[in-house]
Amino acid sequence: MKIAEATVARLVLYHRLLAKLHAEGQKVVSSQEMGKLLSLKASQVRKDLSYFGEIGKRGVGYHVAKLYEHLDDILSPPQKWRMGLVGVGHLGSALLGYKAFDTKKYGIEILFDNDLEKVGNEIFGIPCYHIDHACRIINENNIDVIILTVPSNAAQDCVDSIVKCNGLKGILNFSPTSIIVPEDILVYNVDISVELEKLLFYVKQIM
Amino acid sequence: MKIAEATVARLVLYHRLLAKLHAEGQKVVSSQEMGKLLSLKASQVRKDLSYFGEIGKRGVGYHVAKLYEHLDDILSPPQKWRMGLVGVGHLGSALLGYKAFDTKKYGIEILFDNDLEKVGNEIFGIPCYHIDHACRIINENNIDVIILTVPSNAAQDCVDSIVKCNGLKGILNFSPTSIIVPEDILVYNVDISVELEKLLFYVKQIM
Repeated sequence: MKIAEATVARLVLYHRLLAKLHAEGQKVVSSQEMGKLLSLKASQVRKDLSYFGEIGKRGVGYHVAKLYEHLDDILSPPQKWRMGLVGVGHLGSALLGYKAFDTKKYGIEILFDNDLEKVGNEIFGIPCYHIDHACRIINENNIDVIILTVPSNAAQDCVDSIVKCNGLKGILNFSPTSIIVPEDILVYNVDISVELEKLLFYVKQIM
Repeated sequence: MKIAEATVARLVLYHRLLAKLHAEGQKVVSSQEMGKLLSLKASQVRKDLSYFGEIGKRGVGYHVAKLYEHLDDILSPPQKWRMGLVGVGHLGSALLGYKAFDTKKYGIEILFDNDLEKVGNEIFGIPCYHIDHACRIINENNIDVIILTVPSNAAQDCVDSIVKCNGLKGILNFSPTSIIVPEDILVYNVDISVELEKLLFYVKQIM
């Protein structure tokens, strides 16, 4: 089952919206309403949800709690994902302070840096180790996923040292550069300057 | 000319790669080589570039400097984009310290916050104003684009106060929530937790 990235992203948005509606006590929701709240077409919402076996009742909509639980099953991990963060600079610190990154589903357990003022200390209550010991620490802590927030010129070196670790499954790469990994490790890139340039490209088109 | 978002994102990556190859003194590059360096198929590279009128020479490739200049023309703004950042918290500060956000093409000129310890001061050398004065300051400073890095629960209120400003063209939204804007303003969302959940979804699939 290979599902398109954009579909997964929308699934996450539906899940988040349903959690909010459920908390507000709403019992049913239509595809129109979901679409409006998420700036999506109602037909897109129906198509996505029917793909995962959910068919709303015509003229009524979807049962909020039931749909939420269904999406929660799809998105929930087999156990809480254990993450490590490499590079405790500006962006790394921002992610550490970002509440959405510490949930029942995943949390940052360990940090790596090469700055000796950070190594050996706790930052936001999380222990920081030297990147040279990454493999041992990743193995010992059963880390599933690494969040990479190092400068471009350090990214591939860091990646080369962590991809050898047993059990590592994925990397979320915030460095504004492409990284090369073995086939069995998944990589997603969050390239903030690409997102900005995309917006600016379209802004230029409408001027 | 409505070009798909994914195509624009790849265009930004080609442009960045060509700048690097050019700086390294490389004269020609094949679609195979570009594809390999960016983890894309060579056929995708050729298709994208031919759409913008660039046809490589069979068995030779593309002229690095010429292709770079062509993409630079497409991506360059009519003048340097002037940006404002709303919400100087962890993530906002990270973006301010992010070198890729201050180039010849765009830069952050003003900041907004509601924290009276920040308002009236310069942060990273950039003046910070109270969000209540956003419209006047945005107008006076000819701001084109706003980068929104406020908590979810403050996002729509901030948006409502800035979308009334003359001349504002786009918003890059980092708040993990959907925002509603008038039709003439473009919005791009960079939702870091959605990116993380996408990665985790696929990691779960391969376990």
